[in-house]
Amino acid sequence: MGKQSPYDLDELRISIDRLDNVICAVLAERFSLTEKVGLYKASHGLPPIDTAREERQFAKIATLANQYGLDPVFAQKVLRLIIDDVVVRHQAIQARSSQK
Amino acid sequence: MGKQSPYDLDELRISIDRLDNVICAVLAERFSLTEKVGLYKASHGLPPIDTAREERQFAKIATLANQYGLDPVFAQKVLRLIIDDVVVRHQAIQARSSQK
Repeated sequence: MGKQSPYDLDELRISIDRLDNVICAVLAERFSLTEKVGLYKASHGLPPIDTAREERQFAKIATLANQYGLDPVFAQKVLRLIIDDVVVRHQAIQARSSQK
Repeated sequence: MGKQSPYDLDELRISIDRLDNVICAVLAERFSLTEKVGLYKASHGLPPIDTAREERQFAKIATLANQYGLDPVFAQKVLRLIIDDVVVRHQAIQARSSQK
C-alpha cells in the first residue's frame, strides 16, 4: 500500500463518532419502546422472557446483518447484550408492579 | 396497573424490529469506515490499538448516552464489543499488509 492511503484519518473518525451518536440515539429509543413492552407484560401477567420471540429476533437480525454486509455473529452478540439488559429491566418492572 | 395498558404489543415490536434494522445498517456503515481506518493504519505503520483514542471514545459515548437517557454503562459495553471486533479486523489487515 505504501503511504498513498486515500483516506483521511480525522475525517473517518468524525464520521465514526457521528455514527456512535446515531447508535446511542437508536438504542435510547429502543429501550424506551422495550420499557413500554415491560409495562404491557407486567399489566397482562406475561413473563419478562419470551423465548419464542427471542429466537425469531436472533434469526431476523442474522438475516438483516447479512443483507447489510455485517457479520451476523457480531449482530447477534449486540442483540444478546441488548436483550439481557431488557430482561433485567422487565423483571424490575414486574417486581415493582407486583408490589402495588 | 390492571389490564388498561395503553400499549399495543404487536405495534411496539414492529417499531423495535425497525430500530434493529437501523442498528444493523449503522453498524455495517461503521465497520466499513473502520475498515478504511485499518487500511490507513496499516499503510502508515500505525498500531491497531490506539488507547488514547479509545479512552476519548469511551468518555464521549458515556456523555452521549446521558444526553439521550441511555444507560452510559450499557453504551460503553456496546462500544467495547464494537472496538474489540474492530481491533481484530485491524490486526488482520496489518498481517495481510505486512505479507506484501
